[in-house]
Amino acid sequence: MNFSSKLLENAVEEFSKLPGVGKKTALRLVLHLLKNSSAEVHQFSNSLTTLKDNIKYCQKCHNISDNNVCEICLSPKRDSTIICVVEDTRDVMAIENTHQYQGLYHVLNGLISPMDGIGPADLTIESLLERIKSGEIQEIIFALSATMEGDTTIFYLHKKLKDFNIKISTIARGIAFGGEIEYADEITLGRSIATRVPYENTLMK
Amino acid sequence: MNFSSKLLENAVEEFSKLPGVGKKTALRLVLHLLKNSSAEVHQFSNSLTTLKDNIKYCQKCHNISDNNVCEICLSPKRDSTIICVVEDTRDVMAIENTHQYQGLYHVLNGLISPMDGIGPADLTIESLLERIKSGEIQEIIFALSATMEGDTTIFYLHKKLKDFNIKISTIARGIAFGGEIEYADEITLGRSIATRVPYENTLMK
Repeated sequence: MNFSSKLLENAVEEFSKLPGVGKKTALRLVLHLLKNSSAEVHQFSNSLTTLKDNIKYCQKCHNISDNNVCEICLSPKRDSTIICVVEDTRDVMAIENTHQYQGLYHVLNGLISPMDGIGPADLTIESLLERIKSGEIQEIIFALSATMEGDTTIFYLHKKLKDFNIKISTIARGIAFGGEIEYADEITLGRSIATRVPYENTLMK
Repeated sequence: MNFSSKLLENAVEEFSKLPGVGKKTALRLVLHLLKNSSAEVHQFSNSLTTLKDNIKYCQKCHNISDNNVCEICLSPKRDSTIICVVEDTRDVMAIENTHQYQGLYHVLNGLISPMDGIGPADLTIESLLERIKSGEIQEIIFALSATMEGDTTIFYLHKKLKDFNIKISTIARGIAFGGEIEYADEITLGRSIATRVPYENTLMK
């Protein structure tokens, strides 16, 4: 690209580092922002630097938080005997949106992935073990992606946790609600038959 | 969305104002940036505010520039008797990439669009007329999108320019190179037959 301005080129360069944003999209975004007032552009920039400079991670569950301990961990309404183990803050938000879960969370900040050089030590696993050792926890639910990395992480954690006297479960996998059998992939369909559940159990309590 | 952090929510809010970026994508982008070092995040933010605070528009052609007059307008190698009229800086970049044009540009900063409340006074049309009145210009090339807004703008400008003793042309429209007749839309194909050109004229000089 032939940029008429070095400043424009710099900004486009920075934006094109974002995931899924190429040079052309970056240029479109930057030119869009340029049309805004100076105050709006500064507000956009500040929202990001303020976040980066002031962001905290909950000391208990490691979720992104404005305080040292997050609202979920502090809430007396939550069941503090159950911990749902998730990959990142997006998964916490997705599960919170279902309004089906009243326990606490533990954010791993990633999944074990030897290909990407991410090992158990890079995750918040030690901190999870300490929470369990404190004694109050009765159940751990794994809500990790159904990928190789997710399965590897569950396998690793299960080995670490099996000596504790706690219930360990994973979220149910199978055909999505509204999903048509015809279009389901073979692995999901095959597994959903192998792990079939008694009809009574599928009724919402 | 249930954000665990007000700061995170603010940043996502700002990013989701970008064109084509919804809340989910905004969250993905912000979390990606959060993984970078503080220095990198500040560099990202600064690239944008520095651009906004220091950006200049060329006094002659209105293209984005780091100086009062852009490099193209200053270059002695360019043919200063031809002006190519374009919508914005992206079109200048696209035409420059072809290496087929050696004249100057004039950036309108938009197209006439009554639907969006953009009239002739919102564009740099007065400035274009002044450049033509200065006498040096011999040809104006319209390189505007083949949309209703583009055609309206050409129609308006043509009325303003027809009394000057200058050549007025538009870029050729027709079947794209590599394009198959079978898949061309009816209007393009119909027009390309109506505006057919002598074979000799299609050979590159």
